[in-house]
Amino acid sequence: MNTEMIRAAEARIGGALRRTPMLWAPGLDAIAGRRVWVKAECLQVTGSFKARGGWSAVSALAPEVRARGVLAISSGNHAQGVAYAAREHGVQAVIVMPRDAPRAKVAGTAALGAEIVTYDRLRDSREAIGARLAEERGMTLILPYDAPEVIAGQGTVGLEIARQAREAGIGAADVLVCCGGGGLSAGGAVAQAAPAPPPGVGPGGPARFDDTARSLASGRRESNARLSGSICDAILTPSPGALTFPILQRLAGPGLCVTDAEARAAMAAAFAHLRLVLEPGGAVALAAALFRSDAVDGEAVIAVASGGNVDPGLYCEALAGDLP
Amino acid sequence: MNTEMIRAAEARIGGALRRTPMLWAPGLDAIAGRRVWVKAECLQVTGSFKARGGWSAVSALAPEVRARGVLAISSGNHAQGVAYAAREHGVQAVIVMPRDAPRAKVAGTAALGAEIVTYDRLRDSREAIGARLAEERGMTLILPYDAPEVIAGQGTVGLEIARQAREAGIGAADVLVCCGGGGLSAGGAVAQAAPAPPPGVGPGGPARFDDTARSLASGRRESNARLSGSICDAILTPSPGALTFPILQRLAGPGLCVTDAEARAAMAAAFAHLRLVLEPGGAVALAAALFRSDAVDGEAVIAVASGGNVDPGLYCEALAGDLP
Repeated sequence: MNTEMIRAAEARIGGALRRTPMLWAPGLDAIAGRRVWVKAECLQVTGSFKARGGWSAVSALAPEVRARGVLAISSGNHAQGVAYAAREHGVQAVIVMPRDAPRAKVAGTAALGAEIVTYDRLRDSREAIGARLAEERGMTLILPYDAPEVIAGQGTVGLEIARQAREAGIGAADVLVCCGGGGLSAGGAVAQAAPAPPPGVGPGGPARFDDTARSLASGRRESNARLSGSICDAILTPSPGALTFPILQRLAGPGLCVTDAEARAAMAAAFAHLRLVLEPGGAVALAAALFRSDAVDGEAVIAVASGGNVDPGLYCEALAGDLP
Repeated sequence: MNTEMIRAAEARIGGALRRTPMLWAPGLDAIAGRRVWVKAECLQVTGSFKARGGWSAVSALAPEVRARGVLAISSGNHAQGVAYAAREHGVQAVIVMPRDAPRAKVAGTAALGAEIVTYDRLRDSREAIGARLAEERGMTLILPYDAPEVIAGQGTVGLEIARQAREAGIGAADVLVCCGGGGLSAGGAVAQAAPAPPPGVGPGGPARFDDTARSLASGRRESNARLSGSICDAILTPSPGALTFPILQRLAGPGLCVTDAEARAAMAAAFAHLRLVLEPGGAVALAAALFRSDAVDGEAVIAVASGGNVDPGLYCEALAGDLP
């Protein structure tokens, strides 16, 4: 993975997706004790940065391969990214989703014209279902993070941050990224290593699902014991990716972890101070910026708000306490 | 009021405020039956377009006048706009707010360092309180809409929309604006009359508080019988302004009205499809775009989402039903 691949992904994306804004608010600065910039990927088409990786991967397929359709296994954000890219390229998408995926994500995926195949998290092997469908239909499986073109697509967030940081005159700033399998963290790290300005990429992950932080500490890919039990559905992965982890080892700072309660508080802060809707897994980097400020260096911090696809019930639970 | 005044306001604002994005989503297009663009002024600094008028007015004062401080009477969005401009200019702001103003707006105004003086909507004359404070302290009263520099500031939204419409290749599109006293509608209409692209400005107002629609129909400034009883607190005004109404007569299309239920549904749609937090009064133009599509011409419609300062309780009521 190198910056040329990320620039090529950006060129393929062209004007099909959004350059999302970097926002700040006095109320967030007051909580963190420094300027907090929020890269609002919840405003991306499909509501998360995953549209970038999906577009990058689908657009990189040879036309005759792409014509047979694409397949993804996802609880919702990668699903919508791939479904959107497929629709805009005029090809079919099949998405394998867990039966308990958030309704907002299932509805969003279906509205983009994808065929949805559901599975039971406990009883079924999603990999087996995906392999069978790929075999039967000749479709190409688009992996959620452990694929070069997907990592390159997510890395375009990093290129944009570097440019926007220059435009805004931001000097030294840590960049915090919500981290599941590590596609965004790895792509962002590669993108930012090149043009230089914002230095560290700190992968945030939900506490108790701290595979990335433990792996970075131990130097080998550690696994989570469980894959459910956090509200941060978007970033619960078994372990860092085979492709993403070596990149993170080389370029990323140590992993940060936040609690579900801190993710909820960050959602409430984004509601009150930025008028942005974040999902729990999309709020962990902001939570780290706000509530782990001792772990961050520099006058400013840049947090990627990676997604905003959340069911109203869970969202309103996050707004139920005193607003930060 | 002319475009030169709006351009001068834009020059005074410079980089102090945001060029807010224009967003769209497949789910909104499906409801409206055409492409719906949303000018996301809820992402403006202070959470509403009112930061523009506040900055324009405060920055236009002679330094020795400004130094004595500024005063505003507002339930919250104009309050924060003036408070922010005052703070950034290093002068004091006093804001006269109704005792029942949304807590989010009171908190936001206080956090910007303004002194808040409360009044009782039923018993007190806010004008008398304002006049006394202005007299006693030598402060300049910044009116919420019936002042040329305020109208010019709000008109910068129109300049941006015209530019963004060109950049996005939007041909003919009606522009719908949330309308209380008419500052945004009038300023926007003047701004858009000049560079031409988007033609109509349709002021949206809450049903039963349809002073603007009735005034445009009758040709004279009509009043509302009451000033409470709608969730759209931001846009409940007694009647169109003395300065704004003649501009609207000359340049705006007929007024559109939506119900509180439709404003709530537009809030829910913005949550689900754009991940934007809108307040009821900031959602009425989007509500008109989504649910009054027979009153709109053209392949596309541009709705200004004018603000997002809302208390969590009211917000979650809007999300309680089926999402549109």
